[in-house]
Amino acid sequence: MTAPGENIRINPERLWESLMAMAQIGPGVAGGNNRQTLTDEDGEARRTFQSWCEAAGCVLGVDQMGNMFARFDGTDPDALPVYVGSHLDTQPTGGKYDGVLGVLGGLEIVRTLNDLNIKTKHPIVVTNFTNEEGTRFAPAMLASGVFAGIHSQEWAYAREDADGKSFGDELKRIGWQGDEVVGARSMHAFFELHIEQGPILEAEQKDIGIVTHGQGLSWTEVTITGMDAHTGSTPMHMRRNAGLGMARVLTLVEEIALSHKPHAVGAAGHIDVYPNSRNVIPGKAIFTIDFRSPELSVIEAMEDRLRTEAQKICDGMELDISFEKVGGFDPVEFDRGCVGAVRNAAERLGYSSMDLVSGAGHDACWINRVAPTAMIMCPCVDGLSHNEAEEITQAWARAGTDVLLHAVLETAEIVGE
Amino acid sequence: MTAPGENIRINPERLWESLMAMAQIGPGVAGGNNRQTLTDEDGEARRTFQSWCEAAGCVLGVDQMGNMFARFDGTDPDALPVYVGSHLDTQPTGGKYDGVLGVLGGLEIVRTLNDLNIKTKHPIVVTNFTNEEGTRFAPAMLASGVFAGIHSQEWAYAREDADGKSFGDELKRIGWQGDEVVGARSMHAFFELHIEQGPILEAEQKDIGIVTHGQGLSWTEVTITGMDAHTGSTPMHMRRNAGLGMARVLTLVEEIALSHKPHAVGAAGHIDVYPNSRNVIPGKAIFTIDFRSPELSVIEAMEDRLRTEAQKICDGMELDISFEKVGGFDPVEFDRGCVGAVRNAAERLGYSSMDLVSGAGHDACWINRVAPTAMIMCPCVDGLSHNEAEEITQAWARAGTDVLLHAVLETAEIVGE
Repeated sequence: MTAPGENIRINPERLWESLMAMAQIGPGVAGGNNRQTLTDEDGEARRTFQSWCEAAGCVLGVDQMGNMFARFDGTDPDALPVYVGSHLDTQPTGGKYDGVLGVLGGLEIVRTLNDLNIKTKHPIVVTNFTNEEGTRFAPAMLASGVFAGIHSQEWAYAREDADGKSFGDELKRIGWQGDEVVGARSMHAFFELHIEQGPILEAEQKDIGIVTHGQGLSWTEVTITGMDAHTGSTPMHMRRNAGLGMARVLTLVEEIALSHKPHAVGAAGHIDVYPNSRNVIPGKAIFTIDFRSPELSVIEAMEDRLRTEAQKICDGMELDISFEKVGGFDPVEFDRGCVGAVRNAAERLGYSSMDLVSGAGHDACWINRVAPTAMIMCPCVDGLSHNEAEEITQAWARAGTDVLLHAVLETAEIVGE
Repeated sequence: MTAPGENIRINPERLWESLMAMAQIGPGVAGGNNRQTLTDEDGEARRTFQSWCEAAGCVLGVDQMGNMFARFDGTDPDALPVYVGSHLDTQPTGGKYDGVLGVLGGLEIVRTLNDLNIKTKHPIVVTNFTNEEGTRFAPAMLASGVFAGIHSQEWAYAREDADGKSFGDELKRIGWQGDEVVGARSMHAFFELHIEQGPILEAEQKDIGIVTHGQGLSWTEVTITGMDAHTGSTPMHMRRNAGLGMARVLTLVEEIALSHKPHAVGAAGHIDVYPNSRNVIPGKAIFTIDFRSPELSVIEAMEDRLRTEAQKICDGMELDISFEKVGGFDPVEFDRGCVGAVRNAAERLGYSSMDLVSGAGHDACWINRVAPTAMIMCPCVDGLSHNEAEEITQAWARAGTDVLLHAVLETAEIVGE
C-alpha cells in the first residue's frame, strides 16, 4: 500500500459547517441535541445526510435495520469497500458531536477526495448505524449488533420504547426500513472516529487517541436485605442496616478496581435504598456495580472477588446479599493492521497521540466481530458527553478527521496519486 | 401517698376488646390501621372514644387543637388532675397499638376504678392528642407541641397535607375544634403508656420499660458534589465519585455512633444519588444523617465530628460537601418522681423491667416541658411499628396497663381504700 502524502488534508471549515448544520435538526433545550433514534428528527437528519452524500457522488443503500451505507466507488470493482462512520442519533439531552463527528467526518473524506481528485482502489462507504444510543430502544448499538450477528432482527424489531412503540413499527413509520439483508455486506475494514467521552486526551494534551482495545463490561445488580427499623429506637448492635452494608460494598468495589491498575475501573452509578425515609434504617439496598477492563480474565476476577468479599461483609452484619448479572460484553481487541494505519496516520501528519482503551461501547466494538476494525478518538472538553454541554474544538475535529482520512486512504489504497 | 394494693389490677379482656373494637375504625389493607389525623375515620374514632369515656363517668373537654380531655373526678376539687393518654391517630400503614394502647389503657384505668369503687384525691384525665404521627400534617406531635408552647396555634393551623388542605380547615370539617384555649390546663403529672417501637424489651425478655430519658435528635442533610462522568471512559484517578464519598461518610457515621456507646445511635435512612444511572458515576449524593443521644453534649460532639471528618474525606477525594441541619430536638429527662412511681409500680406488681431511653418522639416528650411526666413502654414483636404488621401480646398490654394504673394511683393518691 502506498502511504498518502502528508499534504492531503480535509477541509476543516466545511466539516464544522456540516456539524453545525446537522445540529440544527432536533435541537436540545440547552445548546445540544435531542434527536433520538427513529423520531421524525432522526428521519430529517437521515434525509439531509443522504442529500449530502449523493451530492458528493455516493450511492445510498439501506438495510432492513435502517443502517445507511453511502458508497463512493473505487477503481477495482472486485475490491471490498472500506467502511467509515458512526451514528447520527443522540441521547435525549445529547451533544452535537457524539456519533455525528464519525459520520460527517466520513463524508468529509469523500468530499476531500473529490476536491483533490484522488481515487482509491477500494470503494469507501460512509455509514450511519441506527440506534447506537439505546436510550429510546434498549440496548445500545442495536443495529450494528444485528449487523454483526449479536442480536436477531426479529428481537430488535420487537424492542419497545417507553410508550410501547416498537422499533420495527417506528422504523417503518419514518420510512427508513430498507431492503438489504442486514449483515450481508462484507467489509475490507471499518474505521470509526468518535469523541473520547472521557477526560484523558484533554488532560494529556494529545490530539489523537489510538484505540487499541474496547473495555469489556460487567454489570452486577446487588440486593442487600436487612430489616427496616426505627432510626431512634433500635440499638446499634441490633441493626441490620442494608445502607451501611451497601456503603462497605461500595468501598470494596473501589479497592477491587484499583487492584487492577491502570485499565480496570469500577463504580456504582445506580443506587436505591428502601424505604428511603429519614427515620427508617434501610431494610433494603439495590445498586448496580459496573466493572470494566480490556481483559476478560480481569473482569471475571473482579466479579469473583466482589461476590466473595461482599458476601463476607454481609455475613458479618447479618445481612442477606444476592447478585444478578444484568449486563455485559466481552473486551474488544481491535485489528492490529487497522490500528497500525491509524498510528501511521497520526505520525505522518504530526499530530500528538496516545494509545487508549475505549471505556464506552461503540458500533465499532460489534463490527470488529465481522471485519478488521479500528477507532480514532479526539478529545472533548472536560470529558463531558451525553450532555448538551458536550463540546470539542474545531482543531480537535480537524485532527481526528485528518487522521481518519489518512487511515482510510492507506487501507483503501490510493491509485495514481 | 399510699401505695395501692398489689391486688388492684386492670381487666385485660376488656382492654383487649376495646383495642380490637377501635381497630375496626379505619382498617388498613393488611391487618393494621389507616386512621390518619383529621380524616373521617379519625372523627369516628373520637366519637367512639367519647362515648366510652362518658359511659365510664368522664366529662369531655376539647381544646382548639382538637385535643380531647376526658375527666374523671377526684375527691378534692382543688387538686390538679393526673393526665394519662397518648394518641388515636395512625400512620397510613400503621398498627393497632401505637398510641391507641396509651389512650385506651388510660380509659381502662377509669373503668377499673369504677369496678373496684376506688376514689382518688386528684382527678384523672384520659387524653387523646391530635396528630401525633405527623404523616398527614408535618411535624409529628403537633398538637402536644402547641399545648407545650413549642409551636403557635396559627402555625399549626396553616400546616397543609399533600392535597393542600390545612390542619385548621380539616379540624373544623370533622367537627373537633373545641373551645378550650390550648395549654390552659395545668397538670399534676402526665403518664404515657406506649409500645416500645424497638426490639430491646422483647430481646431482654422484660415486661416493662421504665423510660428515663427521650433521645435528642439531630438531622443533618449532607450534599456531596463531584462530577457526573462515564463509568467506562473515566480513569479511576480522574473520578470525582460522590457516591463513593457518601459510602465513606456512611461508614464514618457508624464509627461516630459506636464511639458513644451504649445510647447514641446514628444512620442514614434517606439516600439519593444523581443522576442514578447505571453507567454514570454519581456527580451528586444527598443523604440525611440521623444522630440521637439522651445527652445534648453527645449529639453536639457527633455533629461536630461528622462535619470535620466528612470534610476531610471529601477534601481527599476532590469532592465538595455541605451540611444543613434540617431537624432536631433536645434530649428529654423525664421527671424523677413520675419515673419513680413507674418503677415502684412494676416492682410492686412483680413485672420484670428495665430502664429505657425512648428513641422515638412522643407526646410525653413535649408535655414534659410543662408538667412532671413519665412514660411506660411494653414490648412489641420484632420491634416493628409504623407497619400494619405491628403486634403485641395480650400479656404485654396487660402488664403495661397494670403498671400505668399503679403509677397513676400512687400519683393521684387513693382515698379511703
